Amino acid sequence: MRLGLLIIGSELLQGKITDANTVWLGNFLRPLNLKVTLSMTVSDDKSMLSKALRTLFAEVDVVICSGGLGPTPDDVTKEALGEFFGKKIFPSAEARKISEGNYQRFERTLPDGHGYGYLPEGFLPLDNPAGFAPGLWFSESGKSLLAAPGVPKEFQTMLALHFPSRILPLFPAQKSLSLLNFRTWGVPEEKIFTELDPTLWKDLEEYGAVSSLPHVMGVDIGITLSDSTDEKIAAVKKIMRQSKVWSHVWSEGFTSLEEVIVREAKAKNLTIGFAESCTGGLCAHRLTNVAGSSEVFWGSIVSYHNSVKENLIDVKSETLKTHGAVSLPVAEEMALGAQKRLKTDLAIALTGIAGPGGGSVEKPVGTVCVGIASKNGVRSEKFVFKGDRETLKMRFSQIAFFKLLMELRN
Amino acid sequence: MRLGLLIIGSELLQGKITDANTVWLGNFLRPLNLKVTLSMTVSDDKSMLSKALRTLFAEVDVVICSGGLGPTPDDVTKEALGEFFGKKIFPSAEARKISEGNYQRFERTLPDGHGYGYLPEGFLPLDNPAGFAPGLWFSESGKSLLAAPGVPKEFQTMLALHFPSRILPLFPAQKSLSLLNFRTWGVPEEKIFTELDPTLWKDLEEYGAVSSLPHVMGVDIGITLSDSTDEKIAAVKKIMRQSKVWSHVWSEGFTSLEEVIVREAKAKNLTIGFAESCTGGLCAHRLTNVAGSSEVFWGSIVSYHNSVKENLIDVKSETLKTHGAVSLPVAEEMALGAQKRLKTDLAIALTGIAGPGGGSVEKPVGTVCVGIASKNGVRSEKFVFKGDRETLKMRFSQIAFFKLLMELRN
Repeated sequence: MRLGLLIIGSELLQGKITDANTVWLGNFLRPLNLKVTLSMTVSDDKSMLSKALRTLFAEVDVVICSGGLGPTPDDVTKEALGEFFGKKIFPSAEARKISEGNYQRFERTLPDGHGYGYLPEGFLPLDNPAGFAPGLWFSESGKSLLAAPGVPKEFQTMLALHFPSRILPLFPAQKSLSLLNFRTWGVPEEKIFTELDPTLWKDLEEYGAVSSLPHVMGVDIGITLSDSTDEKIAAVKKIMRQSKVWSHVWSEGFTSLEEVIVREAKAKNLTIGFAESCTGGLCAHRLTNVAGSSEVFWGSIVSYHNSVKENLIDVKSETLKTHGAVSLPVAEEMALGAQKRLKTDLAIALTGIAGPGGGSVEKPVGTVCVGIASKNGVRSEKFVFKGDRETLKMRFSQIAFFKLLMELRN
Repeated sequence: MRLGLLIIGSELLQGKITDANTVWLGNFLRPLNLKVTLSMTVSDDKSMLSKALRTLFAEVDVVICSGGLGPTPDDVTKEALGEFFGKKIFPSAEARKISEGNYQRFERTLPDGHGYGYLPEGFLPLDNPAGFAPGLWFSESGKSLLAAPGVPKEFQTMLALHFPSRILPLFPAQKSLSLLNFRTWGVPEEKIFTELDPTLWKDLEEYGAVSSLPHVMGVDIGITLSDSTDEKIAAVKKIMRQSKVWSHVWSEGFTSLEEVIVREAKAKNLTIGFAESCTGGLCAHRLTNVAGSSEVFWGSIVSYHNSVKENLIDVKSETLKTHGAVSLPVAEEMALGAQKRLKTDLAIALTGIAGPGGGSVEKPVGTVCVGIASKNGVRSEKFVFKGDRETLKMRFSQIAFFKLLMELRN
């Protein structure tokens, strides 16, 4: 049994919107040990839709459709599905009832003869509690299809509602699969599997498929265990813990670094503040994207101009003059100043050069000094990264978060 | 001649990352009057990749590949392409030279025998100024293929670099095109073309294809002039300037709101500061993404906790008690406090509820109070938006930026 995804909508191929349902579905399927084998994206074009259905059903048994169920003439999914399965479109009392209910929730009336009340013969309308258009379900001769509107809220609500009863029973033989994930930071992908631990990939492969996903936040090492047992999971974890890469692993699973920080700070009842120069507020922005961060995050002083460093976080003008704004002594004074002014247990300070201008031979673009103030006093470290302005800001915030997490764990 | 897109990467189907290249490519192709006819997403799986190539080349003449060109064993694109086109993999001096150059830029040395130096026979390696792995170009018997790494920056840099010389000549009928764009804010899409200016769409259509793209930042009105002349461009601009929508247009072209703000503040020699609560540093982050923003942006006080509002931007504890943190009086005190403490000409303050918690009947999630302090004194306004936490933070920052721009222009 295999799963396919068909995404329908000209707007997706024309650069108007980014598809959000693929990534959502991947995350939805993971704990169920399922995944999409093939995904296709097509315009609202009947002939293209038919071809895509043919290709998909040649590869998979179940197709999930996103989009094309709206009321406008360019929404041709139902017609295409009817033609593909050789079913005529008929009025369906059940489909009409669902849509009428949806209209009533918004105090509106479904017009007579509205397209929402029509279905290909043998198709089942599915309730859509998040919008107007009913979804569709069809299953015959080993081919099954679930169609939902593409609006992310509607798609996601409908999948969560109907997948367990419609699609999940088709996968009775799910072996016990586990996907282990180890998030690393501070070491490039090729170094992990060469210099740091040349046998790691092979060692892990004994237990399952290995994947390596580098991104600006670090490298994720994934191992998919088929037929997993507690012993196998323990063996994989042991390999990882005994590897030289272990000191770079900051999370098992898929949690983001900022979520881990908020969780661990809450657990230890510690408050956090920032003094940000080169990241320009990005550290605060990232941390405050986590719901509930207000319990541990008290504030950030974005001190872009040197006068703000002096006036609001007590950096001495002499330190600025002697060492320059991008220096370890300034990073330390910033961290101490932020800790004092924001009245937090921990304060992280960043001063650096995000470019494209402002670099020199001694302090090239990409240089960042990170200061950390805690009850243990203050420390600072210097790093040099590569990248454009936005990438550097992200890398700067990431190293600061990594250092903050290490501090929380000490 | 038709274009297809092949997106390769298990991580995309497993919900680990969202594909950003499809939407980018759609936008890149639009002004060229080109679009993707069919897009397929597959895992790093050789047999699936071959099937996808077969399906794509049955429909289209040119395939753009994103991903699977990295150095790890799960990057199988080159092998799959070689097998599909019946070409053996050979060492390529040219590919090796490109990768060596890329390694040198990062002061590193390409190891001997590295996979980057190998190519299917007859394939041309393409320069990749944004990463390590060379891209690929192949064209034979009416089938052409351009492959680039999937990392958005690398994919986008390579397409911008190689599309014009490799793929565009395959579409000889492209006439002289101009894409005009007008960015609006503060009026919903359907109002623009009904209440505000019912004839606008038709008037613009006289000159070319009209598009309307609503997004979290506002609505972009685009006009694609085929066979464009200075006269036609002037005529379109005149229609826009005489339309009632003009007061909502904040930029011609594709400039971001933050770039316009930095440019206009520089021109007027005015400095900017923020006091941010609900946006948690996003305003500062967005403004400091603009290179050169340090000339006008002095800092932001991210006052998440009320004690920071009191201690660092002089909000009176009485005002907080009487009106609550999310209120017009607090927004005004924040703006005045930030203006004074950061010593800037203008200060914008935001206090609101980004959710998911913290809302009430009087002040629901999505409420934001924006204060503006300038030489003209202080003012404040309240707005209510819809969306999840990250969307709300973005909308809050957008309304604040729009108000800031209006203030700069007064």
